[in-house]
Amino acid sequence: MALRKTLRSDLAWATPERIFIKGFDLCEDLLGKLSLGDMAFLEMMDRRPTAAESNVFNAMALTLVEHGLTPSAIATRMTLAGAPEAMQAAVAAGLCGLGSVFVGSMEAAARVLQHALPPPQAIHDIDNCAREIVKAHITAKMPIPGIGHHFHKPADPRAGKLFEIARDNGLSGYYVALMQRIAKEAERQLGKSLPINATGAIGALASELGMPWTIVRGVGVIARAIGLVGHVREELKDPLAREIKTWAEEEATSHRH
Amino acid sequence: MALRKTLRSDLAWATPERIFIKGFDLCEDLLGKLSLGDMAFLEMMDRRPTAAESNVFNAMALTLVEHGLTPSAIATRMTLAGAPEAMQAAVAAGLCGLGSVFVGSMEAAARVLQHALPPPQAIHDIDNCAREIVKAHITAKMPIPGIGHHFHKPADPRAGKLFEIARDNGLSGYYVALMQRIAKEAERQLGKSLPINATGAIGALASELGMPWTIVRGVGVIARAIGLVGHVREELKDPLAREIKTWAEEEATSHRH
Amino acid sequence: MALRKTLRSDLAWATPERIFIKGFDLCEDLLGKLSLGDMAFLEMMDRRPTAAESNVFNAMALTLVEHGLTPSAIATRMTLAGAPEAMQAAVAAGLCGLGSVFVGSMEAAARVLQHALPPPQAIHDIDNCAREIVKAHITAKMPIPGIGHHFHKPADPRAGKLFEIARDNGLSGYYVALMQRIAKEAERQLGKSLPINATGAIGALASELGMPWTIVRGVGVIARAIGLVGHVREELKDPLAREIKTWAEEEATSHRH
Amino acid sequence: MALRKTLRSDLAWATPERIFIKGFDLCEDLLGKLSLGDMAFLEMMDRRPTAAESNVFNAMALTLVEHGLTPSAIATRMTLAGAPEAMQAAVAAGLCGLGSVFVGSMEAAARVLQHALPPPQAIHDIDNCAREIVKAHITAKMPIPGIGHHFHKPADPRAGKLFEIARDNGLSGYYVALMQRIAKEAERQLGKSLPINATGAIGALASELGMPWTIVRGVGVIARAIGLVGHVREELKDPLAREIKTWAEEEATSHRH
Repeated sequence: MALRKTLRSDLAWATPERIFIKGFDLCEDLLGKLSLGDMAFLEMMDRRPTAAESNVFNAMALTLVEHGLTPSAIATRMTLAGAPEAMQAAVAAGLCGLGSVFVGSMEAAARVLQHALPPPQAIHDIDNCAREIVKAHITAKMPIPGIGHHFHKPADPRAGKLFEIARDNGLSGYYVALMQRIAKEAERQLGKSLPINATGAIGALASELGMPWTIVRGVGVIARAIGLVGHVREELKDPLAREIKTWAEEEATSHRH
Repeated sequence: MALRKTLRSDLAWATPERIFIKGFDLCEDLLGKLSLGDMAFLEMMDRRPTAAESNVFNAMALTLVEHGLTPSAIATRMTLAGAPEAMQAAVAAGLCGLGSVFVGSMEAAARVLQHALPPPQAIHDIDNCAREIVKAHITAKMPIPGIGHHFHKPADPRAGKLFEIARDNGLSGYYVALMQRIAKEAERQLGKSLPINATGAIGALASELGMPWTIVRGVGVIARAIGLVGHVREELKDPLAREIKTWAEEEATSHRH
Repeated sequence: MALRKTLRSDLAWATPERIFIKGFDLCEDLLGKLSLGDMAFLEMMDRRPTAAESNVFNAMALTLVEHGLTPSAIATRMTLAGAPEAMQAAVAAGLCGLGSVFVGSMEAAARVLQHALPPPQAIHDIDNCAREIVKAHITAKMPIPGIGHHFHKPADPRAGKLFEIARDNGLSGYYVALMQRIAKEAERQLGKSLPINATGAIGALASELGMPWTIVRGVGVIARAIGLVGHVREELKDPLAREIKTWAEEEATSHRH
Repeated sequence: MALRKTLRSDLAWATPERIFIKGFDLCEDLLGKLSLGDMAFLEMMDRRPTAAESNVFNAMALTLVEHGLTPSAIATRMTLAGAPEAMQAAVAAGLCGLGSVFVGSMEAAARVLQHALPPPQAIHDIDNCAREIVKAHITAKMPIPGIGHHFHKPADPRAGKLFEIARDNGLSGYYVALMQRIAKEAERQLGKSLPINATGAIGALASELGMPWTIVRGVGVIARAIGLVGHVREELKDPLAREIKTWAEEEATSHRH
């Protein structure tokens, strides 16, 4: 069969003696020289990060690693209870839920920001831009991504810290500014406290790093994979899944007995 | 309903103002201070790594991130072709295949080593130990995990580099020694070249770090989640999945037409 | 902790002697009396099908079981190659790709139909309705779900057969009529042949059965789970995955060597 | 690149006008003529079932469809809570847990039976065979698959019903006999009540149908995919996931506040 299109992948190739990843010699250039977080940056951005980018990227990703007994973590633990021999499938089950509701919000925040300020960033009327974004969302009855939190009030401590790290590393630019104006404008137009949350800050920082919004969710996927392995480990040591299941089953069917 | 067992998870908890992960204050102690790789160590080992442990752990994990168009990567790309709106499920699909054949071998290597030298490691007759392990596997007609490679000949360059990093960081102990003797002994008993491969080195290094073999596979799961996000990114930019599918479909059913 | 909401599930409950599923006694009412397809109807619709509904539902679902070496099937086979001990994860990997591109189109068709004719169906001006739907999609530059096929030309044989089965069972009503007018109207407005495809027919038939469009994708998920087990079986007997992988890997990286 | 092996799949192929599945014309031979359950048999066994085989296979599979709020069902619901737009991934997450603990036991029962009585079945000393199997498991301190149930006491009502259906359809042969002797022998050697459970009966019936033990788990995967779609539907209508998650989270971290 003739190929209609030449297949081409530039992630890795090898000879018997050497292994190349994105053009770097794995053993000479990367092992012992690049941290795992910086490797994730290389995979997502096609280049090694600068020291400043590394600081920001590692902080962003670290924020998403561990959120305790989330629905994802429970899915992982439930899966492990049934298939303890397949830890990888338990982590996979947990990742499946990183959709529009939880991790998707940082993708949405990045999309809003990047649509408003397509790279390369030029000087814009940020205030007007924020006003229009907020108005458009309110008119369409859509939630504004990246602001407000049901538990972390009056402010999400992670957002402030992430913005501080970005600023300290010279990576707080137009996207951070726009995200901050959006929150202010939303508070003004809606008349209630709506501070930037962790996913809003991450959407802004990912945009500062030049990460296309279409792959921003990947930061969450990577981070949670790490966290879900932590849940596998705790579940192996001190299992919760069966107790949760038994409680839920009894609660939910007690009206039948 | 009365709980039969108290549920208890110690990974994360929060107040509105602060978030704790394994006892550390996320914003004060971790963000901007811990790299993503060291966070993975914290999730898996319940403590932050020393500088030496960090070097070894990051190198181990980095080795597993990107192996090109593996079956896992193809599964991820195929899944993305059908559900581009659910990148997390594409990565999950790729992780599902990290079982006994590919990533499982490093778990097997760690299990063999840790069964032979249960921690705390004492002085053992390493030579005899290696001889027994090899003999037992040959007798049972089981492959010896962690040695030999179909492509990287005469030696897997990653194994040598990982052992060098371990030695340079003072983390080359009994497990590394035993793994090396196993390879030598296997070559002697089987009469062919069987150098230690990457998974053998990783199984040994994980054991040096004190990581129970039951969670060693988790290092591979974390690393590949990173790599699979890289494949998502490349597939979005320059898709291969449909072409591979069309080719495979035509090849496999041509005898029918 | 006080529950904020009473948990309530009515799918199954049991005593030591008896098992109830949706109110039916499993051993007395279902085993040996209900076919697997009709059980799927019961799970999705909360009641047993009539004979006519059973005929239509089983035909709809059967249409989706086996489409050969689809991206989903390849994902399943790739996963099995890595984790042959976890067949369930291989099927899961294949299911992950049943998103907007492949199986999602029948959900989209059902949504369009049910939005246009919300149940209970009343007499409508079907012609006008079809005209508006087509015009709206063309204006928005969105594809009209359920029509056209790249390979089955000039007509998708499955659509005709499914409509025939619906008619023979007295279940060809307004939704089928609307789907057919949409195809005709699209051909008129776009000036090319756009016959109804299998997913269009299934979207229409699901609507005739009273199935909310929000769960229509579930028919595809069920059907493909069956088909993917077929692929697991064939892959175990006569494996393809490694050969496909080797070919793809060499094709995609040959420009590097 | 030259293929080292000819790819060959015989599940489906098509011309523009016709679609073939395992040699049958989809529209002429299958649609409207084969039920979904019988299609599953065709996918797993490469032939259409006889009427008797259909009765037994459908009953076996139906038994596994719905078990209420199992760990799998909870994983599916948790996943849906995070990614309601990806129902297929929610079902996939639930399937990932069908491993050695829950659905795997019917695979184990079938394996034990088929190892003891490899097809074609000849006349054997069934009593002796059962005695040896039980003794070997007790010696190895392994549980005997397919017997005993923590809740359905003194007998699992499904096992009796399934055996009755097999007998009524002339499909109760050596494997059923052996499974029954194993249970009796286990009760004798262990001195406690150990009736055959549903998975033991299914393992025996699958063996009677000539299904290799290596694919028996597939029956559970198919059946649970159906059941999990039922849970998706109920969760969409009357969600439980967040409430379960909130309860679990508070219970598990209350010692920290």
